[in-house]
Amino acid sequence: MTEFGFIDSIRRAFGSLPDNGFEGIGDDCAVYPVGGGESLLFTSDMLNENVHFLRSAASAAEIGAKSLSVNVSDIAAMGGRPIATMLSLGLTEDAVGEWAEEFMRGYRDASERCGAMLIGGDTTISESGITISVTAIGRCADGNIKRRSDASVGDIVFVNGMLGASAAGLKDILSGHTDTANARVHRNPVPQTEQGLWLGGQPCVHAMMDISDGVASDLLHIMKASGVGASVDTERIPTEVSVEEAVCGGEDYKLLFTADPLSAADLERRYRERFGEDIYRIGRITGPDRSGIVWLDNGREVSPDWHGFSHF
Amino acid sequence: MTEFGFIDSIRRAFGSLPDNGFEGIGDDCAVYPVGGGESLLFTSDMLNENVHFLRSAASAAEIGAKSLSVNVSDIAAMGGRPIATMLSLGLTEDAVGEWAEEFMRGYRDASERCGAMLIGGDTTISESGITISVTAIGRCADGNIKRRSDASVGDIVFVNGMLGASAAGLKDILSGHTDTANARVHRNPVPQTEQGLWLGGQPCVHAMMDISDGVASDLLHIMKASGVGASVDTERIPTEVSVEEAVCGGEDYKLLFTADPLSAADLERRYRERFGEDIYRIGRITGPDRSGIVWLDNGREVSPDWHGFSHF
Repeated sequence: MTEFGFIDSIRRAFGSLPDNGFEGIGDDCAVYPVGGGESLLFTSDMLNENVHFLRSAASAAEIGAKSLSVNVSDIAAMGGRPIATMLSLGLTEDAVGEWAEEFMRGYRDASERCGAMLIGGDTTISESGITISVTAIGRCADGNIKRRSDASVGDIVFVNGMLGASAAGLKDILSGHTDTANARVHRNPVPQTEQGLWLGGQPCVHAMMDISDGVASDLLHIMKASGVGASVDTERIPTEVSVEEAVCGGEDYKLLFTADPLSAADLERRYRERFGEDIYRIGRITGPDRSGIVWLDNGREVSPDWHGFSHF
Repeated sequence: MTEFGFIDSIRRAFGSLPDNGFEGIGDDCAVYPVGGGESLLFTSDMLNENVHFLRSAASAAEIGAKSLSVNVSDIAAMGGRPIATMLSLGLTEDAVGEWAEEFMRGYRDASERCGAMLIGGDTTISESGITISVTAIGRCADGNIKRRSDASVGDIVFVNGMLGASAAGLKDILSGHTDTANARVHRNPVPQTEQGLWLGGQPCVHAMMDISDGVASDLLHIMKASGVGASVDTERIPTEVSVEEAVCGGEDYKLLFTADPLSAADLERRYRERFGEDIYRIGRITGPDRSGIVWLDNGREVSPDWHGFSHF
């Protein structure tokens, strides 16, 4: 069973339980309206030693900051502001003490940068590898929540930064080159907190999510949730590595979003004014009923065998 | 550094960050007021293979149910109703498939029993041992929240069930006897959901928490948080195993609470009417400034070397 097959079977199994007011599984975050036109957002991610990180290739502080950042990224991806996190830490005996304290310094500093308080968690001993589990809580005006299901036919597909450096950095790390620029990008993801919040406030932005598994996988989620097709102009993918690495590699943690084509130029201009950086048009949302992404190379359809990163 | 020393250092490190409206670390749950006289409650627990469970000694469904129940127990311990959970699951290759599906059946059935929806989480591969991390979310009327810090001098100390069976069951399991009654108690903790909710609605109940590490450890948390001392009548500890096992053993998941002495008899009567079971007076909250629990044996002070279960 694939990761997504397992998640689908879980969704079915819980379909008969009362939702207690939650918008459930299927987006970057669960949504819980709290009244006054606001909702809370919830997301969880787990990081396991030797699967998601190597102690030999990243400092404890980097691992601490990354654990926080990948969760905050999901809050940003829905247009929300992170307000709190919970951290559960399974420590091997040799990580109790210095490693754990350095981890917490990194976690704390990343928390301060995005404004999230640590409100609880758990510490336990792990017999086999450090395990890190974070739940992040965000808050968002109801009208600003950006869901995967809100893409409209005709929308422009955007990303808000260069892709593929993290995947290239992982390759560097696995081949023993831990000190390259890309390796540092891989170890130090920057959650798009202010960018997500600002994009959440733009009515012309429709669907949004963060790029954790690569556009080749993540855009499929928007297509499935919105019931639309999409085409991607491969020559427009912003990257300094190969296009394949840029669209198939994981852990970019940039934002992938769709926007009304009539407002796209204005959005680009105002984003640049606000952040001094570009957003990049990489494709279009097309009619319904396409099962996969249509990849174009200067307008001509190509058929690469591209898939995003899968956790199973 | 001990587990609690590490938690204290974390609390200090985050002391300078804005609390964003949360009552932070230090109780069974973090508390977040959402208006309308209600608050949300948040708690997280992590379970690691060969530390918190053995695949050889518990079914996947039992492990699934227990993962949910120990978190729901923390919601009950503050007087709240569980409404949702998030589950992160690090699976070894050999647990993907049948084991994971049976785990989810147990998790789902326990969720249905307590009324909590599953709203999200994460699934990943773990290279070394299954890792389970759950965050539970509860909801509570503000006036019903029972904190560790609310014990008053003169209060009676109660527990709401027999203690020590889980610890005795763990001993059975570790010596290879997985089929004893106590072993089954250990594998199948029952969160005191309705009992916690009902006790939350009783103004005469002051401090409350769940017994996860044994009274010898857990009562110290109430004493520290409330700035009070306590004495325990060891002959009154409700148990079918030794008193030492009953007060030092972990994972009973019964409720430990203090109540106004003038209302204690009435509380006992009404609890019995409501649940058909007894609550047990095991001690008293005494004046301030005692550093440890005073253990009494039929009124005479004794000095056993009793400590609760520690995770480090």
